[in-house]
Amino acid sequence: MIMPKLLILSRDADEYRRLIGSVQLPDLEMTLDPKECDIVIGEPKLIQDALPLLSSLKWVQSIYAGVEPLVDPTQRRNYILTNARGVFGELMSEYVFGYLLFLEKKMLERMKTQAAREWQRPESGVLRGKTIGLLGVGSIGTHLAGTAKHFGMTVRGFTRESESSDQIDQYFHGDDLLNFADQLDYLIIVLPRTNDTNQIVNSNLLNALPSHAILINVGRGNAVDESALVNALKQGKLAAAVLDVFEIEPLPKEHPIWGTPNLYMTFHTSAISYPENLTKLFAENYHLYLDGKPLKYQVDFERGY
Amino acid sequence: MIMPKLLILSRDADEYRRLIGSVQLPDLEMTLDPKECDIVIGEPKLIQDALPLLSSLKWVQSIYAGVEPLVDPTQRRNYILTNARGVFGELMSEYVFGYLLFLEKKMLERMKTQAAREWQRPESGVLRGKTIGLLGVGSIGTHLAGTAKHFGMTVRGFTRESESSDQIDQYFHGDDLLNFADQLDYLIIVLPRTNDTNQIVNSNLLNALPSHAILINVGRGNAVDESALVNALKQGKLAAAVLDVFEIEPLPKEHPIWGTPNLYMTFHTSAISYPENLTKLFAENYHLYLDGKPLKYQVDFERGY
Repeated sequence: MIMPKLLILSRDADEYRRLIGSVQLPDLEMTLDPKECDIVIGEPKLIQDALPLLSSLKWVQSIYAGVEPLVDPTQRRNYILTNARGVFGELMSEYVFGYLLFLEKKMLERMKTQAAREWQRPESGVLRGKTIGLLGVGSIGTHLAGTAKHFGMTVRGFTRESESSDQIDQYFHGDDLLNFADQLDYLIIVLPRTNDTNQIVNSNLLNALPSHAILINVGRGNAVDESALVNALKQGKLAAAVLDVFEIEPLPKEHPIWGTPNLYMTFHTSAISYPENLTKLFAENYHLYLDGKPLKYQVDFERGY
Repeated sequence: MIMPKLLILSRDADEYRRLIGSVQLPDLEMTLDPKECDIVIGEPKLIQDALPLLSSLKWVQSIYAGVEPLVDPTQRRNYILTNARGVFGELMSEYVFGYLLFLEKKMLERMKTQAAREWQRPESGVLRGKTIGLLGVGSIGTHLAGTAKHFGMTVRGFTRESESSDQIDQYFHGDDLLNFADQLDYLIIVLPRTNDTNQIVNSNLLNALPSHAILINVGRGNAVDESALVNALKQGKLAAAVLDVFEIEPLPKEHPIWGTPNLYMTFHTSAISYPENLTKLFAENYHLYLDGKPLKYQVDFERGY
């Protein structure tokens, strides 16, 4: 057998080289030559740029969950594409429940009270007993559902058709989006960017939420009609929104989102791709690859995830 | 059998009256007369004030976990005292992990970045893999340990002698306090106020913590040497502290705690006594009382909890 040759296309290439080297995967050789590599690991955008040169390519391991540049219909698809899954759930749970607690516990108000040296005890909110809706229930959504159950919440899931997580109390599909939204305390968007997810969170959906609801988007920016969201927040139709992702990233400085009341921005940082985690996933898949077995987390180019 | 007579001594007396009434406990009569009641439910301080009048008293159900006014050695003890346990763990978990995530996710920094309209991505911290130390492992500490395990943390517990929670990875006792503190990422104080817990968190203990450590006190204020804590924060020996309780409450306006850097105050709000929860506990204990069985969560007057 010819030794498989790996090309690393990542801003963290040095760290990946060190980590993958330290795992000592059998028969694996590293290369810097795009033309001779069989396997590529890295960021989808960098890999897209190199695709025309990758003449021996058999397998790409994306270090991101989102692989939009590679499933773009204008790109070649004659290789196996696997993405990063199972590694972001824990980080996303920390982010999502961190922000829900930040808002429910009124931490900013407490800070203002402290700054004014006032001993005040306005009641804060609780997660327990609340209803959370997960728009998208893949491996991240399933992990979020587990944390929601830990905190004593009722969990709704909206998916195309799958009902594979037993942490979801009630599933919704297809045209049932407004029923899914009805009486939700928290709406968490965990959708990949596909043609089907464009502006799925529009003014109709936002209007269906109670005015005390909190929206968090940790999926992709295309899922939210950003103008409708800004208007909903300005009009008090929604209590708060936390956005990690945006239609355009980085978000242009003049965009109204920056200054919208009760809107909290992070900057696509909710779940970082830690090279340690990705190396573990790559090693697992590499052994399957050597054995000629189906790889984990293979992407369906048509579906887009 | 003579019908037991219940006196309610609480700021929320009207709500307790309504809730306990709605549960329809067998044979229970409510009274407003201190002299004829067998049972009292309410706030320890209000009950302490009434103690000399409660000539038929057999049982007191405290709606707080802390019962300092009633275990004070100058007070009579010829009745059964039960306190509130098992109802605060979930609320405390929301509070403690909410604040840990608020600090780890650098939410204030993100807000400043947003206000400046800067797309910046400084790395935020994670709970996963961190070591949390619980100073006190009663029913609240046990619940916190469960949430810590959910978030993938290593859990140390410091107790007098008990090792009853299987969520604790490593127990420490007695003179081993500095080893308990060594390399801790988070120190959570969940101790009752007793003579043994006075200033247990002193400058020695604070010096034993790494400088990136976060301290949270949701127990009682007496456990912390407040001057030592203020100094440790000013000198950067500690990353942050979150205090829900204080040696003197309400904290006097001139106290240096108010203006200490990286110190976040809440105002004894980390776990509110919700009448619904307490009514459930009272009903459970009332049935045991009627049957002449030992009540749940009975306080040892000598030990103080």
